Amino acid sequence: MFSVQRRVEFRDTDAAGIVHFSAFFPMMESAEHELLRHLGLSVMQPLENGSHLTWPRVSASCNYLNSARFEDILTVEVSIAKIGTTSLTYRFLFRRDDLVIARGEITAVCCFWQKNGKLEKVAISDQLRETLSPMLSC
Amino acid sequence: MFSVQRRVEFRDTDAAGIVHFSAFFPMMESAEHELLRHLGLSVMQPLENGSHLTWPRVSASCNYLNSARFEDILTVEVSIAKIGTTSLTYRFLFRRDDLVIARGEITAVCCFWQKNGKLEKVAISDQLRETLSPMLSC
Amino acid sequence: MFSVQRRVEFRDTDAAGIVHFSAFFPMMESAEHELLRHLGLSVMQPLENGSHLTWPRVSASCNYLNSARFEDILTVEVSIAKIGTTSLTYRFLFRRDDLVIARGEITAVCCFWQKNGKLEKVAISDQLRETLSPMLSC
Amino acid sequence: MFSVQRRVEFRDTDAAGIVHFSAFFPMMESAEHELLRHLGLSVMQPLENGSHLTWPRVSASCNYLNSARFEDILTVEVSIAKIGTTSLTYRFLFRRDDLVIARGEITAVCCFWQKNGKLEKVAISDQLRETLSPMLSC
Repeated sequence: MFSVQRRVEFRDTDAAGIVHFSAFFPMMESAEHELLRHLGLSVMQPLENGSHLTWPRVSASCNYLNSARFEDILTVEVSIAKIGTTSLTYRFLFRRDDLVIARGEITAVCCFWQKNGKLEKVAISDQLRETLSPMLSC
Repeated sequence: MFSVQRRVEFRDTDAAGIVHFSAFFPMMESAEHELLRHLGLSVMQPLENGSHLTWPRVSASCNYLNSARFEDILTVEVSIAKIGTTSLTYRFLFRRDDLVIARGEITAVCCFWQKNGKLEKVAISDQLRETLSPMLSC
Repeated sequence: MFSVQRRVEFRDTDAAGIVHFSAFFPMMESAEHELLRHLGLSVMQPLENGSHLTWPRVSASCNYLNSARFEDILTVEVSIAKIGTTSLTYRFLFRRDDLVIARGEITAVCCFWQKNGKLEKVAISDQLRETLSPMLSC
Repeated sequence: MFSVQRRVEFRDTDAAGIVHFSAFFPMMESAEHELLRHLGLSVMQPLENGSHLTWPRVSASCNYLNSARFEDILTVEVSIAKIGTTSLTYRFLFRRDDLVIARGEITAVCCFWQKNGKLEKVAISDQLRETLSPMLSC
């Protein structure tokens, strides 16, 4: 199971004294990017033709079970729930020691990022699928 | 249908040139708070006994259909999808003119916020239910 | 005096119960962009040759006099303190009614944003200087 | 010289493709908190009487020399420029390898955070002064 640790920063807290619910999404994204780097990939993967492969999000969700506070050290477990034809679904679990704080999911779609800024959906190549597959959750 | 308008701020964009997917969640929350104020309520509702009624989130989700960019004027429609015993589900639709940008949902649970910072789940009162019910989506 | 009003959003508060000090900077930037739009300009001004004129920041500062809280309505006054050869200094005052909350300053430099993403410093044209000058503070 | 390293997260970039100028302030704050923890302190230091010692900001500034981009690893050097009667001034230097990206400063004031949420300015004790003094820049 791939995981990263991060300490809750003050900017991520809110006036209720806890981590703001929206702050879990950038934390998920950071863990996703860390996983990609771990696999030798990047969320902005340069291609031979000078364009990039990137992963715009089609959905994101989070369920909040317990609250997290300033300076908590959170473990963010990340795995891949599904590799579709063009899309990838990540699953996240946030815990403080053994206490589950939140569970989340992000689905992203594989796209060419063309020089003019346009995004074009593209099938996940066999090579990429093979690189990602060790991270598939059982 | 209750709705608010807001212009995309530069801080909400990312290096892909579009609104960062996480930025939709604070926009939903702002629209929710605007709806509560419109009903004469607040997300931190003072009670007679000096404590507050508040609404910690139990889940949040968003589906992204089209991207939004810096300075776009977005309309955020918000309605109540469900009033449960203790929980409230809001539904959001983001559009730029007639183009749907995203659809989201937030479920929050009614809690006493005690002076020691503890949260205690509480049933939604009949009076509160009545105040909220005109915002129920059909 | 040009000013905008905005209501403090929950995401801008922190666990000390007040607006996080870093949140004043995006609020300044939004007021700056509003002022530019008011003058018929944009912080990403399209030029005839297909490139853009933009304003990367060289410095930003803020002095905090009183704290602001969730749902406060803040007035942000913005004026231009100095139009240099290539740079522009904005001055900001945040107040809640008559109580001064903060004072800030941002200096930005006029640049061509070339298609390859490079920025090239450029003199502020006489025409642009004239458009901006009504906003000069005395 | 005390320093921390951090990788630029995607949420901290903007549509100009670089780290948003406002994002340097939470990075400074995180480095400050790391320095305090390194000294065995906390920005919310519990006191024997059940209240806390905390450090609201009175000013913050940043000068931007070069831009930083997504996934850059930044070194944030932090030192104490001045220990006043009640205030503390931190100085920050951001670099990517040897290239200076930005220089910043934050001044915070020592306060009791009372249970009712009020802040009361208080002199920095001799003991605290001694704990902080090894971090004074020459």
